[in-house]
Amino acid sequence: MILQEEIIDFIKNGEKHYLTDLTIDCAILGYHNQELKILLGKHAHFNGWALPGAYIKKKETLANAAARILKERTSLSNIFLQQFYTFGDNENRLDGSNAEHLPEELKSAFEEDNWLLKRKLSIGYYALIDYSKAEVNPVFPFEDFCWHTVTELPKLLFDHKEIIDKALTTLRNQIHLKPIGYNLLPEKFTLPEIHVLYETILNKKLDRRNFQKKLITLGVLEKLNEKRKIGQHRSPFLYKFDKEKYDEALKEGSAFSF
Amino acid sequence: MILQEEIIDFIKNGEKHYLTDLTIDCAILGYHNQELKILLGKHAHFNGWALPGAYIKKKETLANAAARILKERTSLSNIFLQQFYTFGDNENRLDGSNAEHLPEELKSAFEEDNWLLKRKLSIGYYALIDYSKAEVNPVFPFEDFCWHTVTELPKLLFDHKEIIDKALTTLRNQIHLKPIGYNLLPEKFTLPEIHVLYETILNKKLDRRNFQKKLITLGVLEKLNEKRKIGQHRSPFLYKFDKEKYDEALKEGSAFSF
Repeated sequence: MILQEEIIDFIKNGEKHYLTDLTIDCAILGYHNQELKILLGKHAHFNGWALPGAYIKKKETLANAAARILKERTSLSNIFLQQFYTFGDNENRLDGSNAEHLPEELKSAFEEDNWLLKRKLSIGYYALIDYSKAEVNPVFPFEDFCWHTVTELPKLLFDHKEIIDKALTTLRNQIHLKPIGYNLLPEKFTLPEIHVLYETILNKKLDRRNFQKKLITLGVLEKLNEKRKIGQHRSPFLYKFDKEKYDEALKEGSAFSF
Repeated sequence: MILQEEIIDFIKNGEKHYLTDLTIDCAILGYHNQELKILLGKHAHFNGWALPGAYIKKKETLANAAARILKERTSLSNIFLQQFYTFGDNENRLDGSNAEHLPEELKSAFEEDNWLLKRKLSIGYYALIDYSKAEVNPVFPFEDFCWHTVTELPKLLFDHKEIIDKALTTLRNQIHLKPIGYNLLPEKFTLPEIHVLYETILNKKLDRRNFQKKLITLGVLEKLNEKRKIGQHRSPFLYKFDKEKYDEALKEGSAFSF
């Protein structure tokens, strides 16, 4: 919980501690019930949802800033986190944000040339997390955090729709380069589960037999002596990634083009 | 030519017109004599070479800023230009630059908390240009611009080696997604030329026959009724891209994985 006086101090004195021209916004992605989910915050004062984001300290690397922001929001550390794009082309980003929707006690803390009212660029990072382990922590300016299916997004604020679209395109383009399956799936998974994950990310149907055959031929999966019961007559075997072989295949790049 | 008084005005008053936390650096790439080249500036006051870069105006989109900087340096417009990464992790970027190597008349223009002495992040853009058309314009702080083969780089300043490496990795990873061949080759080219270009970018040998067969099968090339004489007994046919089919193949993505 952040106290009102801390918020007012941030409004008045934040520019002593943070870079003023830009923020980091995180597209935090998880996978659940065969759906790709993204974590969004419901803004406490504006009518809509936004990506969790924050400012970068004056003496903090970008990678550390992104990891800190992620930890403050999801309480997770050592997360797979990738910078994907810096946003500064949208016309809305040429003007500063406005404070008019804020409650009176906060609004009065803004002086005319307050640093928060100036134009901001945003560096986008995507994070892939194990959905079941995230403990979400709403802090100012959000009153709530929820997971949303990426194909059914609520009303988004600012240019955050554009940021999410770019994050998903990047995920799709990097599926053969980055350990995306590894980071989104639980440790043990079935072949139907990884098949649907790839279909969801690539947003296209993949022939089940060819997909499974290719994955097994690549040698990146280890078959476990364990099954998951998913129906009266369906108990597919569980698999896990052979991390070393998986990393090798990613280095090759084209191995994962389905 | 920029006058000394303009430089001093920039040092003293630049923060009224430009964002102060970050710059744009351009990796300008061209292809010549079967070598991938990058444009570097010899710094007028520091001992080494750097990427051409500049500041972003307060009310200018990032894309417009990158195009403006490129035009100021190479006099080319409508160039293929892609943002690829924002650099702010290098420890050297946590402190501001220093002015100690500058000549006395410039050094005296810096006050203690001058905006140019603060930490700067850098947004990297890569540009692909027709080598033969670039007219290079050295402006402050460079005394000269030269094309360097990417495998034989001179001493680089700041973290510019890291920026160049990332630009080249991006080029390699995006070869199946972006019109890279189209923008680096002249309008008409031979099959041996495009073969060597792909080998150079991917930094690996590609079987000539398979490569050419795959390209022709993709239907992205148009064979011209024209040959180039490259030796007493060698006059390969010239080709050009069928831009429409090329763009379609890039949309498919995996078509260009060699």
